[in-house]
Amino acid sequence: MASIKSSSHDEAILRARSVFITGAASGIGFALVQEMLVMPSTIEHIFASYRSLDSESGKRLLDLSKTHTRLTLVEMDITCENSIKRAFETVQACLSNLGLHLLINNAGIGDHDTFLTATTKSMELFYKTNAIGPMLVAQDNNLLFISAVLAAWNSLPKTFLPLLKIGKETNYTKGRSFKAAVVNVSSQVASLSSPRTNYFSYGCSKVALNMITRCMSLELKREEIVVIPIHPGSVKTKSNEGGRMNPGDASLQILNVICNLQLNKTGKFLSYNGSQLPW
Amino acid sequence: MASIKSSSHDEAILRARSVFITGAASGIGFALVQEMLVMPSTIEHIFASYRSLDSESGKRLLDLSKTHTRLTLVEMDITCENSIKRAFETVQACLSNLGLHLLINNAGIGDHDTFLTATTKSMELFYKTNAIGPMLVAQDNNLLFISAVLAAWNSLPKTFLPLLKIGKETNYTKGRSFKAAVVNVSSQVASLSSPRTNYFSYGCSKVALNMITRCMSLELKREEIVVIPIHPGSVKTKSNEGGRMNPGDASLQILNVICNLQLNKTGKFLSYNGSQLPW
Repeated sequence: MASIKSSSHDEAILRARSVFITGAASGIGFALVQEMLVMPSTIEHIFASYRSLDSESGKRLLDLSKTHTRLTLVEMDITCENSIKRAFETVQACLSNLGLHLLINNAGIGDHDTFLTATTKSMELFYKTNAIGPMLVAQDNNLLFISAVLAAWNSLPKTFLPLLKIGKETNYTKGRSFKAAVVNVSSQVASLSSPRTNYFSYGCSKVALNMITRCMSLELKREEIVVIPIHPGSVKTKSNEGGRMNPGDASLQILNVICNLQLNKTGKFLSYNGSQLPW
Repeated sequence: MASIKSSSHDEAILRARSVFITGAASGIGFALVQEMLVMPSTIEHIFASYRSLDSESGKRLLDLSKTHTRLTLVEMDITCENSIKRAFETVQACLSNLGLHLLINNAGIGDHDTFLTATTKSMELFYKTNAIGPMLVAQDNNLLFISAVLAAWNSLPKTFLPLLKIGKETNYTKGRSFKAAVVNVSSQVASLSSPRTNYFSYGCSKVALNMITRCMSLELKREEIVVIPIHPGSVKTKSNEGGRMNPGDASLQILNVICNLQLNKTGKFLSYNGSQLPW
């Protein structure tokens, strides 16, 4: 897979010291991990969660973790609160006082149905996985990840602030575009302006995820934490075999968007190419 | 309560022969029933569903049904598929071949929470009641209401069509603005353009209801059935004690919007005053 260095985005450097990405055993999640391991970055810790490593890419993720000490695999089912809590404790123990700089809520499910074929069961399953799951991962009322995200900034000794103001012109902080960020992988299918009737239960769950993300962005703006929903493009994955991009190319573009995130983007629905999508 | 005739909307006549409204035992639902009983209309049947008649307005609804033969009460819990099916069978038996001209999905729940206090339980309860419930009521895969809506038009003898084309200029059809319509009571809180962080679980369920409504509108446009989400305004009800309008005034405005519905409005997010809201 081409690294972001060889793409047209030579300047893109991911200025985050710690990253947690969910749903990393396949598709876009796996491709994001692969790319983060080779791209120019300040990353010291990549936490990659998975529900199962049974897939081919799952086995490759396991192999990657054996050869890259920066990569830690974490078992987590986003539909299970206890599982999320256990994953958090693992990540927190590894990070100690560093905190988390970037959370990519990528785990989710996708499938077709329509208004006429949707059922209570399909609606509930998609909502629980694609909307409530990312909400739980980001919440802090159960000591989950946002508390770690906040710690990332608050734990910096306050006396360093003047030095940081000087340091922002030096290499380490040059181009750092966010203090901490939450990126929720949504879908253009969630756009009420141009809905797709053949992704009914999925679209309902993803538009709710957009609302979750909007509300999160408002709650966390004062902390200067950037929160966005992102459309990853039409990506060829298990649940979208007709996708136009391969996961590697999609992950390059998504990471380029993340590298360029600024606080003025918070709460906006961004596409993989950086453009803003209508709700 | 002022009838629509005494308001500024003297021309508003509800050109529907049969109406089904959910959540009619209180708040806006009860006010809509009261108003439909006195407003200028062609209504022959009003079906009003309730979960419980224990409230003061519930008892008044029961009294109304005793004095108005056009009003039929139907017990229904929109979170229970079997209950919806039983209600459908009751309505279908009463309507025979007339079918249904207007379905107002009004039943729902409302309460406050935020991104930080929302729980799996609150998210699931709101989604099940405010999004999945109205979807089930409108679906036809379980022989529910849309099949009755479609029957309303399809059961007209096809030989009447030329007469209908002449008839549309005569009094009965003059001003009839839709063949059949589904009105889903949503909320401005569901607007991603201006979300309210203190109605988190509620907002997530209502934005999903907007997606449901958008998809329904696309599926049913070819049948010339109008489907809209409507924001009823800030109404003083049990779940919104700080509301600015009383339910009677809100219901007058909502019915005025319904009286003026045209096919070109289908799928648009309308406010009680008829203006279009951004997603």
